[in-house]
Amino acid sequence: MAQNIYDDPIFFAGYSKLRRSVHGLAGAPEWPAMQAMLPALQGLKIADLGCGYGWFCQWAGAQGAAQVQGFDLSEKMLERAAAATSDRAIEYRRADLETLELPAAAFDLVYSSLTLHYIRDLPRLFACIYRALLPGGRFVFSIEHPIFMASPAADWLADAQGNKVWPVSRYQLEGPRLTNWLAEGVVKQHRTMGTLFSQLIAAGLVITHVNEWGPTTAQIEQQPALAEEAERPMLLLVGVAR
Amino acid sequence: MAQNIYDDPIFFAGYSKLRRSVHGLAGAPEWPAMQAMLPALQGLKIADLGCGYGWFCQWAGAQGAAQVQGFDLSEKMLERAAAATSDRAIEYRRADLETLELPAAAFDLVYSSLTLHYIRDLPRLFACIYRALLPGGRFVFSIEHPIFMASPAADWLADAQGNKVWPVSRYQLEGPRLTNWLAEGVVKQHRTMGTLFSQLIAAGLVITHVNEWGPTTAQIEQQPALAEEAERPMLLLVGVAR
Repeated sequence: MAQNIYDDPIFFAGYSKLRRSVHGLAGAPEWPAMQAMLPALQGLKIADLGCGYGWFCQWAGAQGAAQVQGFDLSEKMLERAAAATSDRAIEYRRADLETLELPAAAFDLVYSSLTLHYIRDLPRLFACIYRALLPGGRFVFSIEHPIFMASPAADWLADAQGNKVWPVSRYQLEGPRLTNWLAEGVVKQHRTMGTLFSQLIAAGLVITHVNEWGPTTAQIEQQPALAEEAERPMLLLVGVAR
Repeated sequence: MAQNIYDDPIFFAGYSKLRRSVHGLAGAPEWPAMQAMLPALQGLKIADLGCGYGWFCQWAGAQGAAQVQGFDLSEKMLERAAAATSDRAIEYRRADLETLELPAAAFDLVYSSLTLHYIRDLPRLFACIYRALLPGGRFVFSIEHPIFMASPAADWLADAQGNKVWPVSRYQLEGPRLTNWLAEGVVKQHRTMGTLFSQLIAAGLVITHVNEWGPTTAQIEQQPALAEEAERPMLLLVGVAR
């Protein structure tokens, strides 16, 4: 079973104060880039893996999706998600993505935001997603960039000239990475980009979009703290098609 | 026109002493991984873009390739390549990959080793390669990894615990990177992995292989200096199909 860190009271309290938790999709700086990778949602059947507060599910419902199923491991997040909508197209289910089973050929779009870096067995999940997609269906996801999470000392350093640099080490050593983000002992799974793409290709999926997200000039003007996100890739956005 | 650094006497003298120059394919630690991405070459028509000393062309000829054309900007390298073979299936031509034109539907395989990071206009070159490939043809290449070349101070640092880390900065800032590798003022072109893959996809090519090369345990045992290549990705190997 995946670690259920989102139901940890300290983690949940911290997470609920993040900009993306307070402001939803508009608080996530990568959202415009994610949105650009999505098809028109009108009439589509959609699964959201790691739906959290349900911001994407609500948005998909508002876009006229025919059916939206949000899956998450966290009871607390699912409660909030369910309380936030009365859209009958939306349904929330508790699920562990390490063991999730989906019906075959049931979805036009599978979406997942910043969840897959918690999952150990991606080949199993990608095979499940492949089967669950209708022919021509799409899988669009974001994941923490492996360059961001590889090093055990993942924090800014100064180089010999005093410039801010991000340290990379142990990149080829795949496996768990323990971090203290919001709470102690959060476990993420590191794999290289090469492994990630190879697993998608091996599952029969065709890569259609790759975006190592970085802030636009306008975003940095509005929110100067985002400038450091141009120095190294933190998020990887990927679109694939069945 | 691309910078012709390989005809610079100082660069050429340094380059000719590298392990991969002295020992050919066997001196390139990524060669087994590249080879694993190649189809059987027997009977194929092959172009090698940035053929250098012609090691790959000679090997392809020995594998029974029907026709091998090696292209390079460096006269000195082409002279050595031509002098090293009497295989009539192999032909060498001087060409600038910034302006190269290839005949349509003429090749089963286009190969390129550690050359594309010198090229400014990859979309033009990828379109040229797409047209030059037969249906089902393959394009297999290696390129310096953008993580390796992004930072202006690209050299090992120690983190707070004294561990060796590779600095990443200015990752989203695409464009020229000036380095002093073997000679002063060598110009390489930085683009993100996201941009590279997007350009391949936009050219109509389908991504089939992605390998951020790292040394095997056996390679590190034979050549301990390779251990640092496991800390951060230096080379990116990619296979695509038309």
